[in-house]
Amino acid sequence: MKSMEKSVNILIEKAENEGIELAWDRLKKQEPQCGFGLLGICCRICNMGPCRINPFGDEPKKGVCGATADVIVARNLGRMIAAGAAAHSDHGRDIVHTLLLASQGKARGYEIKDEAKLKVIAAEFKIDTNRDKNDVAKDLAKGVMQEFGMEKGEIQFIKRAPAKRREIWEKLGILPRGIDREIVEMMHRTHIGVDNDYANIILHGLRTSLSDGWGGSMVATELSDILFGTPKPVKSKVNLGVLKEDAVNIIVHGHEPTLSEMIVLASKDPDLIALAKKNGAKGINLSGMCCTGNEILMRKGVPVSGNFLNQEVAIITGAVEAIIVDVQCIMPSLTEIAKCYHTDIISTSPKAKFTGALHMEFHEDKGEDIAKKIVKKAIENFPKRNKEKVLIPDKPVEMYAGFSVEAIVEALGGKLDPLIDAIKAGKIKGIAAVVGCNNPKVKHDQSHVEMTKKLIENDILVLETGCVAIAAAKVGLLVPEASEKAGNGLKSVCKAFGIPPVLHMGSCVDISRILVAVSAIANALGVDISDLPVAGAAPEWMSEKAVSIGTYVIASGVFTVLGTVPPVLGSAEVVDLLTNGAEGLIGAKFAVEVDPIKGADLMIDHIKAKRKGLGL
Amino acid sequence: MKSMEKSVNILIEKAENEGIELAWDRLKKQEPQCGFGLLGICCRICNMGPCRINPFGDEPKKGVCGATADVIVARNLGRMIAAGAAAHSDHGRDIVHTLLLASQGKARGYEIKDEAKLKVIAAEFKIDTNRDKNDVAKDLAKGVMQEFGMEKGEIQFIKRAPAKRREIWEKLGILPRGIDREIVEMMHRTHIGVDNDYANIILHGLRTSLSDGWGGSMVATELSDILFGTPKPVKSKVNLGVLKEDAVNIIVHGHEPTLSEMIVLASKDPDLIALAKKNGAKGINLSGMCCTGNEILMRKGVPVSGNFLNQEVAIITGAVEAIIVDVQCIMPSLTEIAKCYHTDIISTSPKAKFTGALHMEFHEDKGEDIAKKIVKKAIENFPKRNKEKVLIPDKPVEMYAGFSVEAIVEALGGKLDPLIDAIKAGKIKGIAAVVGCNNPKVKHDQSHVEMTKKLIENDILVLETGCVAIAAAKVGLLVPEASEKAGNGLKSVCKAFGIPPVLHMGSCVDISRILVAVSAIANALGVDISDLPVAGAAPEWMSEKAVSIGTYVIASGVFTVLGTVPPVLGSAEVVDLLTNGAEGLIGAKFAVEVDPIKGADLMIDHIKAKRKGLGL
Repeated sequence: MKSMEKSVNILIEKAENEGIELAWDRLKKQEPQCGFGLLGICCRICNMGPCRINPFGDEPKKGVCGATADVIVARNLGRMIAAGAAAHSDHGRDIVHTLLLASQGKARGYEIKDEAKLKVIAAEFKIDTNRDKNDVAKDLAKGVMQEFGMEKGEIQFIKRAPAKRREIWEKLGILPRGIDREIVEMMHRTHIGVDNDYANIILHGLRTSLSDGWGGSMVATELSDILFGTPKPVKSKVNLGVLKEDAVNIIVHGHEPTLSEMIVLASKDPDLIALAKKNGAKGINLSGMCCTGNEILMRKGVPVSGNFLNQEVAIITGAVEAIIVDVQCIMPSLTEIAKCYHTDIISTSPKAKFTGALHMEFHEDKGEDIAKKIVKKAIENFPKRNKEKVLIPDKPVEMYAGFSVEAIVEALGGKLDPLIDAIKAGKIKGIAAVVGCNNPKVKHDQSHVEMTKKLIENDILVLETGCVAIAAAKVGLLVPEASEKAGNGLKSVCKAFGIPPVLHMGSCVDISRILVAVSAIANALGVDISDLPVAGAAPEWMSEKAVSIGTYVIASGVFTVLGTVPPVLGSAEVVDLLTNGAEGLIGAKFAVEVDPIKGADLMIDHIKAKRKGLGL
Repeated sequence: MKSMEKSVNILIEKAENEGIELAWDRLKKQEPQCGFGLLGICCRICNMGPCRINPFGDEPKKGVCGATADVIVARNLGRMIAAGAAAHSDHGRDIVHTLLLASQGKARGYEIKDEAKLKVIAAEFKIDTNRDKNDVAKDLAKGVMQEFGMEKGEIQFIKRAPAKRREIWEKLGILPRGIDREIVEMMHRTHIGVDNDYANIILHGLRTSLSDGWGGSMVATELSDILFGTPKPVKSKVNLGVLKEDAVNIIVHGHEPTLSEMIVLASKDPDLIALAKKNGAKGINLSGMCCTGNEILMRKGVPVSGNFLNQEVAIITGAVEAIIVDVQCIMPSLTEIAKCYHTDIISTSPKAKFTGALHMEFHEDKGEDIAKKIVKKAIENFPKRNKEKVLIPDKPVEMYAGFSVEAIVEALGGKLDPLIDAIKAGKIKGIAAVVGCNNPKVKHDQSHVEMTKKLIENDILVLETGCVAIAAAKVGLLVPEASEKAGNGLKSVCKAFGIPPVLHMGSCVDISRILVAVSAIANALGVDISDLPVAGAAPEWMSEKAVSIGTYVIASGVFTVLGTVPPVLGSAEVVDLLTNGAEGLIGAKFAVEVDPIKGADLMIDHIKAKRKGLGL
């Protein structure tokens, strides 16, 4: 079985019978994968190469320029961080841009939904908040724009981190400046003949990742809350069973909320619903996939049809009229698979075209109109559906999402104290952030689910985002009743406050919410983040964003377990720095453990040790 | 013979006898190089991979995500452009930063050297120039800072391009916005699951490269001129023979002028000269290598000890007390080779450390003091020189450099007209920009020299920068007498104005000077750059900067010949777009031709065709 999800396995079989190739098939065809690449010791940075280092100690020991395995591994890792940070910061940039347009009345359909949060954030930027919300928003957008360039000395949100943490960053010279600036400097440093000291490259990797976590990602989250509302607990449904045989099924897939929010509006448009009925459907059934799905789940309760490895099989159901995509983690294979079905793959971002897709470009200033056109296109596709090919092999599962930091505080009665008290009393042993992707190298969702279960059994409150949260939702872990599966201490807390033992905090950029949460706890206790009984994990990670995330999480002082092996094993020095030496520098390190239960054990041990350190 | 330069071959032999490994040896050990890498069809962008495409049409035809060879090649190329643009823009950023410090009186040793140019540039930025030069410079620095972020809609210098060119860019949606912004967007687009249409990726590659050529690089050039003076024709000497047996030999190597300018000052310090004499030397002998060498050659006439492939053998002379490096194209092998000699490798940039180097960090606010300390360190190294190991096997060659656009105009009597008239009259058939690196895959300097000779024989005025200009200088092509080797038409023009047939225009960022020159000519003729009898070439390129340069040169409308094969052959579609389809989009395309004579022929044919197009 390739997936923990029943319907996925059934659909994989259907695809096989229909001769359709999926990610698992392509992975098999790639095997054995290149050993140099897996170890990170292949260098394609200049045209004297490509070079590769002999991992067994014989020649070649160096690239043409003289770069060693240490330098090559560090450079490759540095570029992964840069690309991941770039993706998140570009997401943040789009939100800033939308906020500016909205504040100027240039983006119909968008408005300031959370004025209270606007004022909180604006005050952090020293903006006069005693004015019309649009004036405040305009100044905030312009202020945040400066975070991307070279004008400012230090990004604003970094000031939210505990003082002890900021001191560590300052001492190491890794306080992040402009977000784009750190990314571009990483690309510069990894150019031929620039930074050739592996530790120096990795230090800048930490800095670059911090400009993501406390910069690009945090900007994306906070400004999205201002524009679309700060999430509150919301009930919804999950898995491919959310698709309906008798409705126009539209899936939004990708990462940003700007498009998906407008699609939500359009899907409720009476004229379009009437059109759907005219075309023989009972209505319009919108669901989300990956993080753009998480965005509208968190704020609107829109059902989730799946995570990363669900995207291809969704088409195989034969019941999807359109998959509307924006950016990130969208398999280019979708257009190929869609040729065997009636499904339209509709690309919308000028940054992300897909050969074979229908491109209907989205622009915020005409967002509402374009969203309606896209939904109309999907509706018109309904009559082309071949009912004989339809297979929706599962029933949806109930779930709760919407746990922003603000929502958690509210659930706790207005302050974090009950949570802190529960940790002190040992009812909750600690907090784990389990995040990240799917990867066909791992049985779909299994590592996510097994690790999460093990952690809650051990009275560890689990915070999740992205693909992991969707995986946990599918097996029913995101409902208050799941506290029955938790240890007695965690169960009692969950029951007292009516919350699930696993809290869905949003999309991958919303891991910044977890930084805010742990900072608040550390500040309340007067300690550093690295002193807290907190651990992180990315059990099935695959993307460069995950590399950036993992790096800013450890740079923020949180021990992190990786469940798939990063391409660094070709350098013993780099491995030692990341899994050992980092502890002395930043108070946290990585561990690599492909077994999710053993990974959970590492986190539990870490949490126990940190409790001891705090005298708990 | 591995080099055209006699002394290099002698020193390669010396290294071999001493058991020292050089770039050519390491290249040999890498052979056969990975075919997937050479073709560009290896993808290491996410952790589902690494993936590779079978170039013979069988499986695997796609990466795990579904990316085709076209997408993989385009993404890899996009990232090369991003890294190259990042290097140049980071160079520009450092100059902006230095200008700001200097204008605030916070960087002793730095001052506004060219107030006239300051006013010209400031006026382009709509800054009131009728004030104290430091106030103007401060506002200019702050204005240019905005070019790096997301605040501005379009970079300023792009307005220098002919109107027809700008229309093409606007129509294609590739007018560059912030410099960092384009680079970061390229990193985002090439992340897993974002841009999966090869043509769309390459279009953004053009945009990114334009933000380098008309942005980062042009900023570096123009602001360097303001700070350090606009180059004027200057006489100097070149090759490893500039090293002196009886002096403290210091080589500055890398790319930026901020450090090297201060080292020039320090090398003339009477106290330090006295110290050198006290240590047994006759004085301090400074020379430059690569582009930081070109910077101080252009403005101070400091002799040049060599280009990229000279850096290792310089140590083998046994006569070098210190190689002081900043950033870019510095082989990490230097520290290893220096272990066999007394040479100190002194790294100075926080962005570029080298395992085994002595790190003496340079900061502009204490530039003079640090430069003196570095020179002192080199002097103190002189007594450790082992005279028996010294071999300086050549005599220096005379050369002229310093041909900024302003200097060319001045040489022509105050306006470009004589040059344009000579082109119209056919005395000069056209202009060739020959630029780029060394690459041990090509006999050192040979392609540069052979192509240059062939071009001037055919009455084509050659503009050169970087490693190429140094190569041409070594064989005596950068003196007015070299016009004897030119065709009769070009010879007559050179004689009339007393200029060489090959003009050294500076470092690699100074290729922006060539953009300014061709724009001025196009504007004077009321045509687009792509209408001009102009061609470009990078005969021995190896770096990602060269990829960015080549791309912005064709995006600016100049046909360009590449002398080493870029890693794109794995996609017939990408190859066709770059070498054919691009012509229809932007009026220019690439050709790949490893034979420099055949490459020159392509350029000559192109120039003839363009003359015909203009009715000349």
